[in-house]
Amino acid sequence: MGKLLCVGSVAIDSVETPLGKRAECFGGSASFFSYAASFFAPVKLVACVGEDFPAEYRKILEKHNIDLSHLHVLKGKTFRWSGKYEGAMNEAKTLSVALNVFEEFDPVLDVDRDVDFIFLANIDPVLQTKVVERAVHQHVKLVAADTMNHWITEKRGELVKTLKGVNLLVLNDAEARQLTGEHNLMRAARKIEEFGPRYVVIKKGEHGSILLHDKDFFVLPAYPLEKVVDPTGAGDSFAGGMMGYLASTGKLDLATMKRAVAYGTVVASFTVEDFSLDRLRSITLKDINERFEKFKKILSL
Amino acid sequence: MGKLLCVGSVAIDSVETPLGKRAECFGGSASFFSYAASFFAPVKLVACVGEDFPAEYRKILEKHNIDLSHLHVLKGKTFRWSGKYEGAMNEAKTLSVALNVFEEFDPVLDVDRDVDFIFLANIDPVLQTKVVERAVHQHVKLVAADTMNHWITEKRGELVKTLKGVNLLVLNDAEARQLTGEHNLMRAARKIEEFGPRYVVIKKGEHGSILLHDKDFFVLPAYPLEKVVDPTGAGDSFAGGMMGYLASTGKLDLATMKRAVAYGTVVASFTVEDFSLDRLRSITLKDINERFEKFKKILSL
Repeated sequence: MGKLLCVGSVAIDSVETPLGKRAECFGGSASFFSYAASFFAPVKLVACVGEDFPAEYRKILEKHNIDLSHLHVLKGKTFRWSGKYEGAMNEAKTLSVALNVFEEFDPVLDVDRDVDFIFLANIDPVLQTKVVERAVHQHVKLVAADTMNHWITEKRGELVKTLKGVNLLVLNDAEARQLTGEHNLMRAARKIEEFGPRYVVIKKGEHGSILLHDKDFFVLPAYPLEKVVDPTGAGDSFAGGMMGYLASTGKLDLATMKRAVAYGTVVASFTVEDFSLDRLRSITLKDINERFEKFKKILSL
Repeated sequence: MGKLLCVGSVAIDSVETPLGKRAECFGGSASFFSYAASFFAPVKLVACVGEDFPAEYRKILEKHNIDLSHLHVLKGKTFRWSGKYEGAMNEAKTLSVALNVFEEFDPVLDVDRDVDFIFLANIDPVLQTKVVERAVHQHVKLVAADTMNHWITEKRGELVKTLKGVNLLVLNDAEARQLTGEHNLMRAARKIEEFGPRYVVIKKGEHGSILLHDKDFFVLPAYPLEKVVDPTGAGDSFAGGMMGYLASTGKLDLATMKRAVAYGTVVASFTVEDFSLDRLRSITLKDINERFEKFKKILSL
């Protein structure tokens, strides 16, 4: 069993969707990622929060196999995000962002020889590169990263530099097109491979995902859901399920990677069934495995 | 082996895509459907063309196991469509339409006891209902239909009436949402089931398709392609591959239906690799079966 390290944001979200609204709930890319991944393997969470971060949220993570020794409490308030989804809920409209303590975030890491899988959630590529420089050692098997439109536009050079040290890039379809200028996602994935990552995963939301490794494409639909309550955290928990599964097997061959993408898909399908971490908090690995088997059956020809 | 009847349009298209343009080439919903279906089973094509319809096009169909005894030649010119695709080529922009002889199309049918699978391509629902009333007899196993945004807007009542006599509706995601007012495609499919069809197939273009039958959802990605030359006819040849495969097996259970949707996906993946019927004309059932096996391998977890 591998050990996984995740660097990203821990936040307090306010979300509105066609199915309801929730003020001041637990959010953040690293929270969703870590919770999802820790169904499969132990996770070390590197992030910062303000003095207002609820003790209750800390307990939620600690109880779920997540090491919080690098969750730094800084003077000030926790990162806050407020957003709204409409219609088919394909995209969040950000209503407000207050970086708060996250503005000063500088991930200080001990070189931890235990860690063999690293996930750089969607943060400034300058910070992502810092983590790679500080944390990557000979025992690290895989460095994965996420990014977003903002960094592709504002810090393209820094992002391209980060990608040289990244083995697996996970990003959404719009970001893949933006990064490469390619409409066709298969060609976009190939171009991303040239930036460095030997695995590329493109997330298409309700339409599933694409995995590229060497010459092989693997395509997967999303798990069919009749009720999506809140898509917040879907992408991060997809990455969490995927990386957690990889860490639990310790393998990186294509067959394992395909199953990892499918596990990510299944975990994300739970996430969106309720607000915040609520649905994930109500399930166990057994539920995930059961849905995985259903998914496998749906896909078998 | 069942026999398949298709009612729809035979046209002459002029198409422009980011990868090239082609003037006055072979097109039409019934042409793509019939050509695709006839890899698997004999097809009877019910349509009309003008006196200018090239003898060469007629030969293309006849040589491919398609019965043209109901391809009526009317006084005037063949239906013409001109369209353009841009960017990700998700939607055609219609530049011009000239219905020509198609304006007077009234599908006169003998009751043909041989036919057991019927496909109503995208034509006026009033004509679709006429075909159902004239052609459906006790030996017909399945009536499938396609439709489009125009009929959903302009002839909703007539379309709803048609759907009562339809067992399988195949339509795209935007049309499914328009017809039902549901953003979630799984819920949209369930609502369509209530209109009559016991099978619903929603096509999502490059994102694959969804099949609903009773309580079961089957989801399938599109076959991953790095080069799409022209999407014209993708939906019709998807339906053709699907119905042709069904007719070849004569079965309608869920496992067969799943494989039929996968065969439709594979046939459509060939169609878009060139303009008009060109790519389909360059392959055999062996090529289709080989790509089907690759697809199956891609999907296996």
